[in-house]
Amino acid sequence: MSFFRSRWVAPPAHATELEATGLPAGFTAAGAAGGIKPEGLDVGVLFCDAPAAVSAARFTTNARVGAPVIASREADVDRLRAVVANSGCSNVGDGDRGLQTARATQETAAELLGIEPTQVGVASTGVIGNELPREPLLGGVREAVAGLGADAEDFSTAILTSDSGPKRACLEVELSGGRVRLAAQAKGAGMISPRYATMFCFIQTDALLSADTLDLLTGVTVKRSFDRISVDGQLSTSDTVFAIASGEAGIRVDPETEDEGRLGEAMDAMLRQLAIEIVADGEGAARIGRVVVEGDADVVEPVARAVADSPLVKTALHGADPNFGRILQAAGAVWPPGVPFLADLSIEGLQLVSAGDAVPLDAGELEQLQQSVKGAEVEYALTVPGEGGQAEVYFSDLSKEYVAFNAEYTS
Amino acid sequence: MSFFRSRWVAPPAHATELEATGLPAGFTAAGAAGGIKPEGLDVGVLFCDAPAAVSAARFTTNARVGAPVIASREADVDRLRAVVANSGCSNVGDGDRGLQTARATQETAAELLGIEPTQVGVASTGVIGNELPREPLLGGVREAVAGLGADAEDFSTAILTSDSGPKRACLEVELSGGRVRLAAQAKGAGMISPRYATMFCFIQTDALLSADTLDLLTGVTVKRSFDRISVDGQLSTSDTVFAIASGEAGIRVDPETEDEGRLGEAMDAMLRQLAIEIVADGEGAARIGRVVVEGDADVVEPVARAVADSPLVKTALHGADPNFGRILQAAGAVWPPGVPFLADLSIEGLQLVSAGDAVPLDAGELEQLQQSVKGAEVEYALTVPGEGGQAEVYFSDLSKEYVAFNAEYTS
Repeated sequence: MSFFRSRWVAPPAHATELEATGLPAGFTAAGAAGGIKPEGLDVGVLFCDAPAAVSAARFTTNARVGAPVIASREADVDRLRAVVANSGCSNVGDGDRGLQTARATQETAAELLGIEPTQVGVASTGVIGNELPREPLLGGVREAVAGLGADAEDFSTAILTSDSGPKRACLEVELSGGRVRLAAQAKGAGMISPRYATMFCFIQTDALLSADTLDLLTGVTVKRSFDRISVDGQLSTSDTVFAIASGEAGIRVDPETEDEGRLGEAMDAMLRQLAIEIVADGEGAARIGRVVVEGDADVVEPVARAVADSPLVKTALHGADPNFGRILQAAGAVWPPGVPFLADLSIEGLQLVSAGDAVPLDAGELEQLQQSVKGAEVEYALTVPGEGGQAEVYFSDLSKEYVAFNAEYTS
Repeated sequence: MSFFRSRWVAPPAHATELEATGLPAGFTAAGAAGGIKPEGLDVGVLFCDAPAAVSAARFTTNARVGAPVIASREADVDRLRAVVANSGCSNVGDGDRGLQTARATQETAAELLGIEPTQVGVASTGVIGNELPREPLLGGVREAVAGLGADAEDFSTAILTSDSGPKRACLEVELSGGRVRLAAQAKGAGMISPRYATMFCFIQTDALLSADTLDLLTGVTVKRSFDRISVDGQLSTSDTVFAIASGEAGIRVDPETEDEGRLGEAMDAMLRQLAIEIVADGEGAARIGRVVVEGDADVVEPVARAVADSPLVKTALHGADPNFGRILQAAGAVWPPGVPFLADLSIEGLQLVSAGDAVPLDAGELEQLQQSVKGAEVEYALTVPGEGGQAEVYFSDLSKEYVAFNAEYTS
């Protein structure tokens, strides 16, 4: 089956799928069982052996960030050459001790890899408020560095928490001067997910580009992917994206060229598919929704997020109920004061609401509607007054299983 | 059992509980089975026979309001003498036809009661987007007007949807010149509840006061009660509060007097208890929470709402999990940019977080904490930097039953 499973992501014609665990030239990775979790891989190391590598990073905007985010922000985020990520504990809320553990991780990895501590990005996911045990973590780092290899199989597994399986891809992208590789490994089940699964994505390419270009591509594609998803409207303390370019393919990608656009398109499709997989992997999710709002640029974003985060819309999605009233309610709650409520709504291409009022359906249309909301992906298109704005959000449904997971899970 | 069941509401010493279905002098009420619902009472009429009565009203701030809210806003909200409320259909999203039904209701009730159509407040609750059947509604109005009596038993039942039972109270309030009565009938299970139950509250008193004073008291007490609750963070299209004062007790309440304060205190306690009952009645709710945030006046309100609306906090409350990490995450997500995250958190009086980091607990404290979060009411106290602000929000937990109700309910 193609990596591009969602009908909402078009695979770029100039990109070919390789083995999903593949890595671009210049990268090695490994995973180890350090003992932070009761069992299984829990420490991952990714390394780029090209001294001239450049990088980019994005972090959660939550004011309460974990120690790994603090330590990574202080690193040289445009010159990273390694990533150490662990699952089993998020290292949030543990004060100075937690920060020292994050820094010790950078130092240990740097020494083993022959780079600077400021070239190591760190990321942790798991329970908040517990101590991240330092020796198991550093032991895992040593084991992983010793076992670095040419694929991301163990690395992409070690970063998982409540995910149902690894989320990863490797593409070959055809540029004017030749082919480059682009790979990514992600984890998570929401902006903050059930079980504090947190969202991580680590991206690699062997294209040769500047740190500024990589930062631009990372910023744009993250905004169109991981920034557009919601499992439960909750913002993690630990969300982290690291992108590293080794340059080892020797194919240059200059700013504002067609090649920049082609690499960006491939990165965009890859990250959007990974983001959709995070939504689809929200605990208990039976189906996912996409809401697209068009109209006034100031209105489209809050309306799309309000619809995607509404527990009433999410439970209706779960129950395959084409409940347009709940969508109008969610949109109306964040409508700008003083602006008349005029919204058109279609579900799966069938118009149900015109200017805020119900459109009568005949029996055939009703049957079509009831069938279409039973699919794995349901699309809601909302048109509001005004011009020039468009916002989309992908969201999971809200199920009894989500509640069970989060009510029964004790930190 | 006392009406004031919550430890968070202190019964005023100068108020005495009467039979909960009681009404102040000058008021009659009734309920009828009009046939909007498949069975049971679904139309309620409340009438004040004092020509000089004054009134006040508050409505949802959702931009997408129902026809009854539109019609009621256009009425003389300071001179209302009757309320017609129905359950079974919210009359939202039905365009001109819905608005004409709301106006026909005002006209029919006015003619039967010998008042003006602009003196009739209307309120509807139930499914959105369906036609509110006019003849069953008007038939119910005729039947209820014919049966008007001295108690609110049937009226308080006719307005219910998913509520587990009626929510009502009648108090005798001791003022300097004598005794007045204060009564209210409410319904709902959230700002917007499961099943679109919507929030209504109808308040009556026989005190003699001006429309301005009644409006002031209504505004202040609604802000401290129905404005401070969340079942699911969703804002209804139909929330309505009507307060009517008949003056029939002949006891004058002048502005800025001690008596105004005493009546206000009684109204405040009554509305807060009713609001807490709405939260406790959220479908599937096992326990309710109260979050109190103290600190900078601009920060306390969004932080309190973010904690109360967080599905992760709500599922932890449901599972009796004293999960402080989820509270920090919810608070941090709405923290003002650039302000350091420094928050202290106590749950049920036990401090768990100091300046954003975990406070170590001994075994006895841990045991105390685990017991205290199993109660019917759990209190969270959050202190953030700054001075002068305090905000509280009462909220229900999030349960599998909430999801089942809302996923399986088809509009």
